[in-house]
Amino acid sequence: MVVERGSMARIAIDAMGGDYAPRKIVEGALWAAMEYGVSLELVGQEDAIQKELDHIRKVGYVLSDCGTKGHKRRIRIDLDKIDYTITHASEVIGMGEAVGQSIRRKKDSSIVASVNAVAQGRCEAVVSAGSTGAAMAASLFGLGRISGITRPAIAVTLPRMDKPVVIIDGGANSDCTAGMLAQFAQMGVAYAKLSLGIENPKVGILSIGEEEGKGNELVKETYPLLKQMNEDGRFEFVGNVEGKEVFKEKADVIVTDGFSGNIVLKVTEGSSSLLLNMIKTEFKSDIIGAIIGLLAKPFLRRILKRVNWEVFGGMLLLGVNGISVIAHGRSSAYAMKNAVGAAVKVLNKDINSRISESINNE
Amino acid sequence: MVVERGSMARIAIDAMGGDYAPRKIVEGALWAAMEYGVSLELVGQEDAIQKELDHIRKVGYVLSDCGTKGHKRRIRIDLDKIDYTITHASEVIGMGEAVGQSIRRKKDSSIVASVNAVAQGRCEAVVSAGSTGAAMAASLFGLGRISGITRPAIAVTLPRMDKPVVIIDGGANSDCTAGMLAQFAQMGVAYAKLSLGIENPKVGILSIGEEEGKGNELVKETYPLLKQMNEDGRFEFVGNVEGKEVFKEKADVIVTDGFSGNIVLKVTEGSSSLLLNMIKTEFKSDIIGAIIGLLAKPFLRRILKRVNWEVFGGMLLLGVNGISVIAHGRSSAYAMKNAVGAAVKVLNKDINSRISESINNE
Repeated sequence: MVVERGSMARIAIDAMGGDYAPRKIVEGALWAAMEYGVSLELVGQEDAIQKELDHIRKVGYVLSDCGTKGHKRRIRIDLDKIDYTITHASEVIGMGEAVGQSIRRKKDSSIVASVNAVAQGRCEAVVSAGSTGAAMAASLFGLGRISGITRPAIAVTLPRMDKPVVIIDGGANSDCTAGMLAQFAQMGVAYAKLSLGIENPKVGILSIGEEEGKGNELVKETYPLLKQMNEDGRFEFVGNVEGKEVFKEKADVIVTDGFSGNIVLKVTEGSSSLLLNMIKTEFKSDIIGAIIGLLAKPFLRRILKRVNWEVFGGMLLLGVNGISVIAHGRSSAYAMKNAVGAAVKVLNKDINSRISESINNE
Repeated sequence: MVVERGSMARIAIDAMGGDYAPRKIVEGALWAAMEYGVSLELVGQEDAIQKELDHIRKVGYVLSDCGTKGHKRRIRIDLDKIDYTITHASEVIGMGEAVGQSIRRKKDSSIVASVNAVAQGRCEAVVSAGSTGAAMAASLFGLGRISGITRPAIAVTLPRMDKPVVIIDGGANSDCTAGMLAQFAQMGVAYAKLSLGIENPKVGILSIGEEEGKGNELVKETYPLLKQMNEDGRFEFVGNVEGKEVFKEKADVIVTDGFSGNIVLKVTEGSSSLLLNMIKTEFKSDIIGAIIGLLAKPFLRRILKRVNWEVFGGMLLLGVNGISVIAHGRSSAYAMKNAVGAAVKVLNKDINSRISESINNE
């Protein structure tokens, strides 16, 4: 996935957002620059960013800290081969701050300034691991909505046995209408096609109970809209998808309100890590277990890698005029690298024109 | 947990409900009768039930088919030591049937007749593995609501590392009001105290975002009600619980609408089985893996047992005038035995008087 140097895309990085900012954010961004051949605009407190760059220039590498311990390797970083600039932004928006206020008041915050780099045409995409609410609000205010879109939504890719699934909305809109969900379906389909390469993505709606007519009021109101879109040949609608069917191959795109979508993501994360913790504890229960656990480690590590959210790195905010990737707050350098990769995947693919066509050709 | 023979509780069993009915249901019920010393009213098609009883009388045991394969053992069943009766009910309500209609029309269905066994005072509790909707509706119509309760709700127990957590509502009410959720909290607290023995259960509300003020409209409206209950000394309210925190020890009782609650349960089931499938596949990838996998099997099996929904067997429908346990549709004999166990746990504990006191002392 190397972008040609001639047409090198530039990505704005909110260097101050995330639990391990700026270190891991800068490291991941540089790693991405090496891997995908993109150039960078690093946005944030100049001193802090420069300090990280100086360190990396000195040692010449970053560590691949990809969650699965004991697997660190050195990623060679040659700063002279990376096209980067630093844009100073003096303020930082913290995780607990009221979103609307802070976006308006902190005009010189790293998230607002990095969105501006896209709005002003210097960059093709922005990536932030800061507060999801702040990144969303800054993107919405800074980039504006695609004409016809009621509300932007977050598209999240979850790993499965064979192919991944896109959940939309992953948490941008806590309360939704049926019309919003119908638009999410269209955006999700465009995203699954362009980012995951699924030719005719099957769309389902998250619900309780499999049959038509089961679910809450929102599902019952949305169902006929999606059914109509199926009849109009916009996409294949497969009906209700229950919680446990999320991980089966029934649908490629699962539409839901941001509250339920976020619950799906977080419960998946929580229950998987509970299970993995139980496995660790069980193997530690006696000496035989410890030995078998040691032997089993490489196998379990391969699974960890497959279910690791860090592989997908970032969620895309769809429906805004520009490409905005929201990375996990706990992003490691590896997760950040992949979040930039998520942006690269849709660069030059005109995803927003596709979404606009799909929404406005009704 | 042996109930004294003198005061032997009688449980109504919907012998026709569930994917493996009547065989596994009858087997599980008899196993429970041996284990907990309860007596049974087996409700359903007499011939079919009698056939199962004849078979068990002949062989003298049932198999403990507790999901985790290769672990079957014979459970000795001495029919002469079990106090059981058969109540003939000619009809069965299928999984896909419209609930309201079928409950009203099929007066002689096994679920309606087994609820009646409680309503008419012959039994202390009813257990059904049939359609959740049908079991709920039949219980509500047959037993009536506890005075003051707006809507009954399903309480589900999920395993965690140390102590389990109660999710309420697990799927009875797809759309809820703040007032309903406040009642769910009170019912959940009574249940956690009496069934799980947690002295002062901590209550949380499922949400997205940790801070007060985050979540959807329903959460924002419910939050102050729960906060007030905390101030009134009714229970400790710990605030918002995110999806991934469900599996941490933050709250003992998590309140949510039935749509989101059901999503939590089903996503937990789905993601856990995805992970376990990946582990199986990974160990099969080569001959070394196969050998290590074989060695690791007993350890993984112990974990499977811990996260197995069959251990909890049944969900309690709280808020109705009687004890109604809804077992999993795919209930094995083992799951059914434990579903009866879930009823036994709250028998003689006056859970409904406690709920009534809690609701009406406002």
